[in-house]
Amino acid sequence: MDFSIRAANVEDCKDIARMIRELAEYEKIADQVKVTQKDLEQDGFSKNPFFHGIVAEVPEQHRTKEGHTKIGYALYFYSYSSWAGRSVYMEDLYVMPEFRGKGIGKALMSKVAQLGLAAGCNQLNFTVLDWNKSSVDFYLSQGCVDVTDKIGYHCMRCEGEALEHLAQP
Amino acid sequence: MDFSIRAANVEDCKDIARMIRELAEYEKIADQVKVTQKDLEQDGFSKNPFFHGIVAEVPEQHRTKEGHTKIGYALYFYSYSSWAGRSVYMEDLYVMPEFRGKGIGKALMSKVAQLGLAAGCNQLNFTVLDWNKSSVDFYLSQGCVDVTDKIGYHCMRCEGEALEHLAQP
Repeated sequence: MDFSIRAANVEDCKDIARMIRELAEYEKIADQVKVTQKDLEQDGFSKNPFFHGIVAEVPEQHRTKEGHTKIGYALYFYSYSSWAGRSVYMEDLYVMPEFRGKGIGKALMSKVAQLGLAAGCNQLNFTVLDWNKSSVDFYLSQGCVDVTDKIGYHCMRCEGEALEHLAQP
Repeated sequence: MDFSIRAANVEDCKDIARMIRELAEYEKIADQVKVTQKDLEQDGFSKNPFFHGIVAEVPEQHRTKEGHTKIGYALYFYSYSSWAGRSVYMEDLYVMPEFRGKGIGKALMSKVAQLGLAAGCNQLNFTVLDWNKSSVDFYLSQGCVDVTDKIGYHCMRCEGEALEHLAQP
């Protein structure tokens, strides 16, 4: 199937917001999605953006029954490793279920890797849910390393009241 | 003990590079540190920096026997959660061993939280090595959540030849 990968622009935020919700439903955490189309527009497409995005599109003749032609996306941002230096972090990688198995996810991830290398990055980092075995297997097949299993990295988070409290001097 | 926390500047990179090596030795992975003072200067203190830093300093009368007064640091960068929106990521938090237990680590982390909240961030994310029990306990005592334990997040990484290969179209 024909598809193309391109940089996301502000007009893509409606579809990206839709796919973020779809991904969250798949990950069984849809109730935790607070991000709206408007947030994406403001946070990704103004000065000093918090993230960048790419989208996968299919031609009109392959549009979904709901009429969608934007059928996958990845969000990423530049980050830093105090061991390895410049790094790129892939926040999300998603392809709509009916378009899986066609190399679109691989092409999106490959594009993030290209952009990272072009910016001088030495690492691509991301997280995966351990029960999402098909994703874990895909990433491992691409030569990725599970640094939680390998060296015991645990992801920690502070938010809400705990974050407000922590910020008090 | 008196100490102060301030934004890092390019003149701090020599001490930050030293403390990165000290932290890596503590974490038993010193051989993996590729980042040099020059890398830090270029990557953190030019246009579109890959990270920001803060340092903890003590007065001259408390300097170490090697003469150091910069005795702790944190690196951070802005990031994004497709669920929660604007986030801040703390890459490193380090206080030299002889200055621990005086609230300096807490003050550094608090500063990162303040900076994050001021930038509209909803989350502070970071990783910890699971065998580093004193750090894990400290973070949990601050209300942080271990999202690896809680919802199964695993940290994945692609680098070196695997990253080059992934980037090939």
